[in-house]
Amino acid sequence: MKKIRIGIAGYGNIARGVEAAAMESPDIELVAVFTRRHPKEVKIKSPDAKVLNFSQVEEYKDAIDVLVLCTGSAKDLPVHGVQFAKLFNTVDSYDNHVQIPQYFKNVNESALSSGKVSIVSVGWDPGLFSMMRMVSEAVLPQGSSYTFWGKGVSQGHSDAIRKVDSVKYGIQYTIPIEKAVEAVRRGENPSLSARDKHMRECYVVCEEGADKSRIESEIKNMPDYFAPYDTRVNFISEEEFKKNHSKMPHGGLVIRNGTTGEDEQNKHIMEFSLKLDSNPEFTGSVLLAFARAAYRMNMEGMKGAKTIFDVPLFYLSPKNRDDLIKELL
Amino acid sequence: MKKIRIGIAGYGNIARGVEAAAMESPDIELVAVFTRRHPKEVKIKSPDAKVLNFSQVEEYKDAIDVLVLCTGSAKDLPVHGVQFAKLFNTVDSYDNHVQIPQYFKNVNESALSSGKVSIVSVGWDPGLFSMMRMVSEAVLPQGSSYTFWGKGVSQGHSDAIRKVDSVKYGIQYTIPIEKAVEAVRRGENPSLSARDKHMRECYVVCEEGADKSRIESEIKNMPDYFAPYDTRVNFISEEEFKKNHSKMPHGGLVIRNGTTGEDEQNKHIMEFSLKLDSNPEFTGSVLLAFARAAYRMNMEGMKGAKTIFDVPLFYLSPKNRDDLIKELL
Repeated sequence: MKKIRIGIAGYGNIARGVEAAAMESPDIELVAVFTRRHPKEVKIKSPDAKVLNFSQVEEYKDAIDVLVLCTGSAKDLPVHGVQFAKLFNTVDSYDNHVQIPQYFKNVNESALSSGKVSIVSVGWDPGLFSMMRMVSEAVLPQGSSYTFWGKGVSQGHSDAIRKVDSVKYGIQYTIPIEKAVEAVRRGENPSLSARDKHMRECYVVCEEGADKSRIESEIKNMPDYFAPYDTRVNFISEEEFKKNHSKMPHGGLVIRNGTTGEDEQNKHIMEFSLKLDSNPEFTGSVLLAFARAAYRMNMEGMKGAKTIFDVPLFYLSPKNRDDLIKELL
Repeated sequence: MKKIRIGIAGYGNIARGVEAAAMESPDIELVAVFTRRHPKEVKIKSPDAKVLNFSQVEEYKDAIDVLVLCTGSAKDLPVHGVQFAKLFNTVDSYDNHVQIPQYFKNVNESALSSGKVSIVSVGWDPGLFSMMRMVSEAVLPQGSSYTFWGKGVSQGHSDAIRKVDSVKYGIQYTIPIEKAVEAVRRGENPSLSARDKHMRECYVVCEEGADKSRIESEIKNMPDYFAPYDTRVNFISEEEFKKNHSKMPHGGLVIRNGTTGEDEQNKHIMEFSLKLDSNPEFTGSVLLAFARAAYRMNMEGMKGAKTIFDVPLFYLSPKNRDDLIKELL
């Protein structure tokens, strides 16, 4: 079997997750990692792949089947997504929700012009969670959907803590409020504010002699990030921080409560949950499965930007269709 | 908007579920129910739909966009699936796992000859659970998948109880064993026998003066159905039976434990669960969403037999693609 040749653009945490997944996938070959740093500064794990500068990406137009975009959602992808879709099939986990329709439109123009497929915004949310929201609403149109995130590290909120004066290290865990989750699971269709759904727990290492009560108050009152939530701030030692808070766990759940029948008398609850030791490795694994799909869809003549809603799921698996029907249907 | 015109073949519990779902769906119009009984004997709930005999189905070739097949999996669908795919787009919940590949092949021949789309084996298992098994294995190839069913009524096991001498009424609930589910949730990848995963609880109303210990022993020792499981038999009154055991609840869960990273050190758990007050109404709702998909896929030029693995998910929803991207991605 000819392997699917992938490239990775950017080499942060998610890129390392894609690389790890590729190393476990016999049908995938990682050809090259492209970086904006000097290639000599970047050490990758795949023995047979090259490390190259972004400026060389065009030379690999015919040597790479799918480019997995692992640069940042905030500023990088709006440029890279559009630029690379002119050259390659691509996948990305663009997660700036409000901007997704515009991003989709821009990438679509590029991918139509090149005749390639670009699957945008696939990780777990957006991505697998979107799939669950879509399918569960289509099956149970009478009902309500709820998404909870956590327990897990929010990069944006952790960054915000670290910007507070005299904070040396900081990390923030988003935690779903169990009482709210249980009410949803019981099918009560509660109306929930931001504060009702999630609380924010922070672990902070501060500079020696810093005013802890000032730091705590600055964090708790930060608009948008913390003010609308119940926030707990824990001051810990640098040693404890490094020992217990160096992983990037995450997870969450999507629940739909729906009803059917006369007088809507029958209740149904659909729930999808994730508990992830490593958010970037799991996201990388999702991206790799969709990279496989992007290549195969393009091979069958499809082109343009796609979302998880457009992808027939059997393209995600290296197994053939007959085996999937026999083993998993 | 032109409505999607559906017909229903057979009028048992699942058909009534499809009808109830259709009545709640503004984009769907139920044209007719086809029955093997005398049409006058069948009372349906939709005021504007006809009740017709199976012999009239061909007359509706151009008046129905999708025929939803609700006859039995054991003997009816192997005939009806093949026969009706020659005339209509169809959907069914054929669930005889071992026979699915052959059934798929036979229906595919019919659907290719008519140029129609037939989506086979879509309910929740096979169906939504298959989708979860497929996606979770594709995302986490290193790992194990587990499916548990229940707590819910098994029709086949209930029928088996009722065939025991002196049993007047009987119902059987399949119950997942919590200890096994918890071990799977903790990521322990246990190796589980049939007896480890599920127990079977029976409620029996017997004829007056019947030998209860003989009935209990006959049930518990029934090969295949009960012997390989721990089975509890409860004798109850006819009154209690009618009061507490007239619904058809069901549910279950699919869990995948997978690992990623060097030395597989990071664990991930994906779980999908259903808690259903009415198995036939939920299954009917799934069938209706896939009926919508069958019609739309055929409108776009596709043909042949399809499974849940072949269906781009946005076809399931009456919403347009832009709104789905904006609201649910």
